[in-house]
Amino acid sequence: AAGIPMLGLDALSSAAYGPEAALTILIVLGAGGTTYANPITLLIVILLALVYFSYRQTIAAYPNGGGSYTVAKENLGVGPGLLAAAALMIDYVLVVAVGVSAGVGALVSAAPELQPYTLTLCLVILGLIAAMNLRGARESGVALAVPTYLFIASLFGVIAVGLGKALASGGQPSPVVPPPVVPAATEAATWWLLAKAFASGCTAMTGVEAVSNGVAAFREPRVKNAQRTLTAIIVILAVLLLGIAYLCKAYGIGATEPGAAGYESTLSQLVGAVAGRGAVYYVTIASVLAVLCLSANTGFADFPRLCRAVALDGFLPNGFAHRGRRLVYTEGILVITVLSAVLLVAFDGVTDHLIPLFAVGAFLAFTLSQIGMVVHWLKHRPEGQSRAAAKWAAVVNGLGALGTGVALVVVLVAKFVEGAWVTVALVATLVALFVWVRRHYRSVAREVASTTPLAATNLNPPLVVVLVRGWSRVTRKALRMAMRLSPNVYALHIAADEQRLLALEEEWEKYVTAPCLAAGVAAPQLAVVTSPYRRLYGPLMEFIGDMVKTHPNRHIAVVVPELVERKWYHFLLHNQTAALIKGYLYFSGLERVVVVNVPWYLKGDEGAGEKAPA
Amino acid sequence: AAGIPMLGLDALSSAAYGPEAALTILIVLGAGGTTYANPITLLIVILLALVYFSYRQTIAAYPNGGGSYTVAKENLGVGPGLLAAAALMIDYVLVVAVGVSAGVGALVSAAPELQPYTLTLCLVILGLIAAMNLRGARESGVALAVPTYLFIASLFGVIAVGLGKALASGGQPSPVVPPPVVPAATEAATWWLLAKAFASGCTAMTGVEAVSNGVAAFREPRVKNAQRTLTAIIVILAVLLLGIAYLCKAYGIGATEPGAAGYESTLSQLVGAVAGRGAVYYVTIASVLAVLCLSANTGFADFPRLCRAVALDGFLPNGFAHRGRRLVYTEGILVITVLSAVLLVAFDGVTDHLIPLFAVGAFLAFTLSQIGMVVHWLKHRPEGQSRAAAKWAAVVNGLGALGTGVALVVVLVAKFVEGAWVTVALVATLVALFVWVRRHYRSVAREVASTTPLAATNLNPPLVVVLVRGWSRVTRKALRMAMRLSPNVYALHIAADEQRLLALEEEWEKYVTAPCLAAGVAAPQLAVVTSPYRRLYGPLMEFIGDMVKTHPNRHIAVVVPELVERKWYHFLLHNQTAALIKGYLYFSGLERVVVVNVPWYLKGDEGAGEKAPA
Ligand SMILES: [K+]
Ligand SMILES: [K+]
Ligand SMILES: [K+]
Ligand SMILES: [K+]
Ligand SMILES: [K+]
Ligand SMILES: [K+]
Repeated sequence: AAGIPMLGLDALSSAAYGPEAALTILIVLGAGGTTYANPITLLIVILLALVYFSYRQTIAAYPNGGGSYTVAKENLGVGPGLLAAAALMIDYVLVVAVGVSAGVGALVSAAPELQPYTLTLCLVILGLIAAMNLRGARESGVALAVPTYLFIASLFGVIAVGLGKALASGGQPSPVVPPPVVPAATEAATWWLLAKAFASGCTAMTGVEAVSNGVAAFREPRVKNAQRTLTAIIVILAVLLLGIAYLCKAYGIGATEPGAAGYESTLSQLVGAVAGRGAVYYVTIASVLAVLCLSANTGFADFPRLCRAVALDGFLPNGFAHRGRRLVYTEGILVITVLSAVLLVAFDGVTDHLIPLFAVGAFLAFTLSQIGMVVHWLKHRPEGQSRAAAKWAAVVNGLGALGTGVALVVVLVAKFVEGAWVTVALVATLVALFVWVRRHYRSVAREVASTTPLAATNLNPPLVVVLVRGWSRVTRKALRMAMRLSPNVYALHIAADEQRLLALEEEWEKYVTAPCLAAGVAAPQLAVVTSPYRRLYGPLMEFIGDMVKTHPNRHIAVVVPELVERKWYHFLLHNQTAALIKGYLYFSGLERVVVVNVPWYLKGDEGAGEKAPA
Repeated sequence: AAGIPMLGLDALSSAAYGPEAALTILIVLGAGGTTYANPITLLIVILLALVYFSYRQTIAAYPNGGGSYTVAKENLGVGPGLLAAAALMIDYVLVVAVGVSAGVGALVSAAPELQPYTLTLCLVILGLIAAMNLRGARESGVALAVPTYLFIASLFGVIAVGLGKALASGGQPSPVVPPPVVPAATEAATWWLLAKAFASGCTAMTGVEAVSNGVAAFREPRVKNAQRTLTAIIVILAVLLLGIAYLCKAYGIGATEPGAAGYESTLSQLVGAVAGRGAVYYVTIASVLAVLCLSANTGFADFPRLCRAVALDGFLPNGFAHRGRRLVYTEGILVITVLSAVLLVAFDGVTDHLIPLFAVGAFLAFTLSQIGMVVHWLKHRPEGQSRAAAKWAAVVNGLGALGTGVALVVVLVAKFVEGAWVTVALVATLVALFVWVRRHYRSVAREVASTTPLAATNLNPPLVVVLVRGWSRVTRKALRMAMRLSPNVYALHIAADEQRLLALEEEWEKYVTAPCLAAGVAAPQLAVVTSPYRRLYGPLMEFIGDMVKTHPNRHIAVVVPELVERKWYHFLLHNQTAALIKGYLYFSGLERVVVVNVPWYLKGDEGAGEKAPA
């Protein structure tokens, strides 16, 4: 069970908000609401057991990792695969948003004076997590293990002590710190209300699929080890959910109004009631905050990985597909940061407002993955086993699919107006985007496809235009490169300042024309365009445009000398002129023009001495 | 006075929040607080008159536009100029943040059920303004004139009717819609409290410098016309401020708790008390909202312009300095959007929390500009006038400087803890940044400076490496360009897929080697590097690195074929590979390697037919 911290974080963290989500719906039932929490939790735990047996089988069938996208795509086809991918992407964004908001919920429960700053705190924590991910910091095993085991141990301790007190007092323990009084009932219990509570409570199950994605990371026998880890996680989660539900009823703990002054998370009330507000309380709440932030962090790891898999199949821009380098993951990290920030701002950083969106994505992915497994068993047998075993496996996954599918429908219907529609709309938009991207790439591929051989004649060198600001090492290097490429070199100076121009003309004579004459080489010709308003791009484009017209059979290479500083602020201080020139040239669509970037590497003080001409 | 809508927006809009800012400080005095509003407003109007005479002279002295940066730099030197620039930049960010937040304050006064969504509304409106600016939409004259004149007319109407009713009732008019009851006093009036109220109220003066910046845009005689417009704006603003202060006292209107439920802006209370909550009320509030949003928009126009001026002097990255094209202003717009969003989030979208930051920046810029004018008159005489006139002009600007300087000190002292320190810290940071940027550019210039002539020998062509994925029109074009540049061409294929490699080898024989043989030209050699994990950049860099080592005397040109699609989504779908390759090459710092981008322009369906080989 070594994988519990890494792969159990996402699953276990939901104990901090799933039960509370159900209780929040039951607020309107007053003190009687907590009575219904127990049967609802039991139903959720039964569903959890179904999902457990389903994922045990997924682990066995996909020892290299069976994410919902892979399983759905391989067994059900591209359409359901894309549906699963869209659902998962939204799920990951919500893992981040809910992890952060629930963590802040724990924090403001311990320090109520921070409650008015809920959203600001959410955005700050999100920013910190994003910054860590952008820097490529990987959390070490210890950094994951300590909070996770502390979380499990402290909650188990609180539940054990609470159960003991409840038994000793005949089910009526008296709280150390009394929870806020549950307001009077304003509605009667209806099936509709209970269905909504169940739908919200189902978010407690999110994240249990993590083990099946990560089988490849286990030691051999990895299938067995992964299954053992999954068992441990599910058992711990079930104990937490049942224990929390039972003790909430015993202590009369209900949810408080989310996002309002006086909000206190259910878990905070529970720990306070059982253990008081001493060291145990603060250690527990700190571990809850840490585990929720770390679970948000899993979304940051999973999202770019999924984008990569989808991009490799051609459904997202190529940029997402390249493996390994930090630079490439940056895009995925920025995308998930912006999306979760938008969600947090739109929903005020309040977990309860995000719950309806969360459940839909997670259960859609669950269901598609289970249905995929059913189809899998109809085609493959489990390793070294009989046909009957395959049928039995299909039945197990079928039950899982049925359970999660029914839950999905309940969630969709019960939560549609409250926010599930947002997820539905986003899933549809994402799938449409996937299809459009693939179609577009295919049409590009058709357009550039060719069976015409290379024409190996008329390969005269291009006319080369070098942009020159003044005489410098940078100019010298670029000019030499230009002369390597072609005997026809023009040095273009865009003159905003007459004195500078006169100086340049003098320098040109001395530093360029004279040595070329001496070496018997054609000297690059200085071409000057005046630009009194310091415009750079307009005059340049005109010059190139004229050249294209007057030399209808020649190609033109524009040499752009570029200062390169290998520091983090490089992009802010330099770089842009070259990129913009390329942008303008491409925008004008001149077929016969190419851009040559000649870098000059700045050394700072150490390299300030004169170098041999490059 | 044709410039009132364009150049008066920023000045007049502050009537919507300046008086309220003072009244908010006076809340603790209870009903008695409004009594102090009148003398405080009188003091502000006197200061406004001083500033008016000062800026009349600035207009005359700088008929091409005398912004604080220009005036301070030309007369006081670079240091004070940079201080003014930093103060102005922060001022513009706050013009945006305060304009938006005060607009939303008007909105939630009219529709109190929106009050809980204050911050969200602020961010949405900010996003809309930013989007319009990014698209380069210029507000037409009518779009500015209608809300501005409506704002002036409706507020003048309300003040006139209110004054009439007050006179008719002997100074005790009865309100149509009674304002919320002013809470009981919790503190006694102290000089300290009144100074704080004055400091807050001074924000009513922000924006009056706009005319002096925009003199160049007036018709001839432009100095006279600009001065006339300034007179009109100042008179209107003074009438608004005095009218609002008098009527607030007459009707017993105090500020309500900012950012809390039940918040109603002072102006909303006033209009309701005088005119009731009918059509007049909604038209007035709508014009207030529109004028405040438009005044926020002026920050978007001014900020990039100031950045450009500072960048032209070398104190900000070059990228800000290029004139005219939309692309370049984009950076300034993004910067101001992010900064004002940060302020709005940090201060909950509540105007009152932003006020302390606002006043410091504005008054620092005012003061530096006035002091600069004093020095100006000590060196220049007003056109065609005597020495005595110059002395008199210096006295007028000196009085202006003294008034705004004293106000600045009051604001700094009275508001330091509440937020003025933020502005002070930001100003210091910005000035440090300016100095660092300039010093950095100078050190770069020293590093690249050279008096070594061009070495016109040993100009052998480079080794050319063309990246090849498969045979296509794109490859063909890039290959022909490579062959124009050098006889030594290597086609590098990074193979992740064996079948594709076999196909390419066959195509190469048929489409490249054969025609080259036929033409008697050296055929480009296909070099293959296998990359089973689809890594692209690592193998490429290794290949280039090896080449650099094995050819110590040659330069290497890497030809990167690039798909260019002239659509807005181009950047999302293509472009990146080439940019990343350049990034990797530059990061590795290989001196003898240059990058050649060869664009292939996608035509979409129309251009899908085969073209003559380019
Ligand atoms: K979770
Ligand atoms: K879970
Ligand atoms: K999940
Ligand atoms: K203003
Ligand atoms: K003003
Ligand atoms: K201003």
